[in-house]
Amino acid sequence: MREFFNVIPPDEALETLLDRLEVTVRAVIVPTSQALGRVTAEDVVSPEDLPPYPRSTMDGYSVRARDTFGASEALPAFCQVVGEVAMGSQPQVSLATGHAAVAYTGGMLAEGADAVVMVENTQCVGDNSIEILRPVAPGENVIQVGEDVRAGDTVIPKGRHIRPQDIGVLFSLGITEVAVAQRPRVAIVSTGDELVAPEESPVPGQVRDINSYSVASLVREAGGLPMHIGLVADDYEAQRLAAMDGLERGDILVFSAGSSVSSRDLTVRVLDELGPPGVLVHGIAHKPGKPTIVALVDGTPAFGLPGNPVSAMVVFGILVRPVIQALMGRTEPPVTHGVHAKLTKDIRSATGREDHVQVKLIESDTGILADPVFGKSNLIRTLVEADGVVVVPLDDGGLYGGDEVFVRLY
Amino acid sequence: MREFFNVIPPDEALETLLDRLEVTVRAVIVPTSQALGRVTAEDVVSPEDLPPYPRSTMDGYSVRARDTFGASEALPAFCQVVGEVAMGSQPQVSLATGHAAVAYTGGMLAEGADAVVMVENTQCVGDNSIEILRPVAPGENVIQVGEDVRAGDTVIPKGRHIRPQDIGVLFSLGITEVAVAQRPRVAIVSTGDELVAPEESPVPGQVRDINSYSVASLVREAGGLPMHIGLVADDYEAQRLAAMDGLERGDILVFSAGSSVSSRDLTVRVLDELGPPGVLVHGIAHKPGKPTIVALVDGTPAFGLPGNPVSAMVVFGILVRPVIQALMGRTEPPVTHGVHAKLTKDIRSATGREDHVQVKLIESDTGILADPVFGKSNLIRTLVEADGVVVVPLDDGGLYGGDEVFVRLY
Repeated sequence: MREFFNVIPPDEALETLLDRLEVTVRAVIVPTSQALGRVTAEDVVSPEDLPPYPRSTMDGYSVRARDTFGASEALPAFCQVVGEVAMGSQPQVSLATGHAAVAYTGGMLAEGADAVVMVENTQCVGDNSIEILRPVAPGENVIQVGEDVRAGDTVIPKGRHIRPQDIGVLFSLGITEVAVAQRPRVAIVSTGDELVAPEESPVPGQVRDINSYSVASLVREAGGLPMHIGLVADDYEAQRLAAMDGLERGDILVFSAGSSVSSRDLTVRVLDELGPPGVLVHGIAHKPGKPTIVALVDGTPAFGLPGNPVSAMVVFGILVRPVIQALMGRTEPPVTHGVHAKLTKDIRSATGREDHVQVKLIESDTGILADPVFGKSNLIRTLVEADGVVVVPLDDGGLYGGDEVFVRLY
Repeated sequence: MREFFNVIPPDEALETLLDRLEVTVRAVIVPTSQALGRVTAEDVVSPEDLPPYPRSTMDGYSVRARDTFGASEALPAFCQVVGEVAMGSQPQVSLATGHAAVAYTGGMLAEGADAVVMVENTQCVGDNSIEILRPVAPGENVIQVGEDVRAGDTVIPKGRHIRPQDIGVLFSLGITEVAVAQRPRVAIVSTGDELVAPEESPVPGQVRDINSYSVASLVREAGGLPMHIGLVADDYEAQRLAAMDGLERGDILVFSAGSSVSSRDLTVRVLDELGPPGVLVHGIAHKPGKPTIVALVDGTPAFGLPGNPVSAMVVFGILVRPVIQALMGRTEPPVTHGVHAKLTKDIRSATGREDHVQVKLIESDTGILADPVFGKSNLIRTLVEADGVVVVPLDDGGLYGGDEVFVRLY
């Protein structure tokens, strides 16, 4: 086994892995109605022009624009209303000079019309006659054929996360099925002699497994499919068999470690010996995520997460989530969601280490406050209380109470 | 039908409805493994103490604290290592004066021990002997029984959105089922003579229905269950029958309107006449959400969303989402997720109106830029391009290029 003398910054650890990762996105076809939250596997190309006919953007009257030229409140243009084009209908009416037809937002124009006058810029002057108070240019208040989307245009590029509005857009083009990236399967192995399953009653010395369940939920949120491989003892052979099972069944392997150092040491050996290149990173310059393992085993990314539940969660966000998204070919950089808040207390840190400190958000008269949730490591309570984390950058010695900070929300 | 002369601010429109809403949260029991994203319907109370035994927070040696008093690098305390307490095991070893036992993070202490010395503060001096270089106080590096959670403590209060870490916490306490709020059923009626279903080929004058599908996706994201009631014509009786069907089957009724004014006028009448108190708000001081209807029909909240797809989405976020969450008894104010960015262009607005302007985020050397996505109303393309919206407050005349703005992310 190689030795690892230095911890490296978290983003370098991620790059080290991503640089060696060969991504082949597997596409599956799903009904558009079930595509929410998936990632497009191919460019989605419009089969048709949108709109397919010139469409009014206003309620008013379709007209021949030239009939309105020079119109003003003082000298309105007079038009005869010769009919209407009902919503959802084709025009039954054709305009001659000085004619207008009632038009609706989203509806078609009368034959011969080339612009729409807003109803607000007209006034009725008796049955079937209007005065137009402002001129319109040809094409005004009209969306032309293909002005929105042209047949053959890429409407959603590949690698994009599908949002509610995208579902609407796909349906608007009659696209009822879409090719999305298969969800990466994330095999989760829990290790630790002290761990028992949640439904068991631990005897003194034992604790229930937490991390594999919060990690499974995080996998789901990130767009992956969690697969529980099982709970294994701190034993080299048991870990090795579980890892082989996980590598066969998963696209990513995650060891959710017990809290002891010996458990982690076994995981390092297992991940280093199962296939090349093995362990890439052992230890990151991060608090509380230092004891993290990043490996690549015959092309499959593998991680050993720290045993501390807070650490496991934070490291998942930094390293595992981006890899899940990379395997789906997701191209846009996931923007970090959060809020700006004012820190209530000092946070001490060490230069050369990126600290993630859990905070609780408090609404106050002076804006949102971020109150650090400290506590002995492994306290469950801090997990429930915190709303997010504040990052103290690598080269920063700490933050002060009153500082404006960005809180990454859970 | 009553008449509505004034539009009111969006938050006032929401309060008007919430003030009259009687919320009875219906609880359903789900397995904890499927509770992600649900809202707790009752306080979740711990059945047991956590930890159930005193637990070491460090790798090192459990000792009798008084044996270490006065220890220093110059004058270390000498201890004999009489055994270890393995992970997951109860202590097989008992300490007399001057004894120590190997302890692991998360493991138990030896009988008679009351503190743990970190391995870093010790050195081996031959087989089974160590020198302790720093004193520990009783209880140091130990989590006491119930120090994290006590039996009977509320670990997750009711009305809380369940996150990945909460799943871990529930399992850590052996809680394998949890009472969550039933998902509110949101009945969606699409109206508009021009609308056809997505799988149909529209003839000239027709368009495919978009809004009811993007709204359904937004409902799902907000924690509700969408139910498509169907596509109905701009006809009073047809809308009335669809509304009655929706009111019977849904906890919330949403009219996803066509784009024409006449369609909306029918919806106002239907929602006002089906049951008291009827329409509460018709028109909000909001761009592009002005033509919005808020009603309460015999206790069921009902909405008429604007026909413009962007407007429908924005108004959903302002009015419908909070009502879905209210019906689940969700207590914490949903924090608005977003990013701060620098505006690339001026945005004009009118005082007395809250403007939501779609923006695309661009990464630049000077930070994130928010580039307004303008376009004729109803353009599909703007929906796909935008990453979120910038809000121009009610009393603001506009924003300037270069201004720091908060972008609410889609």
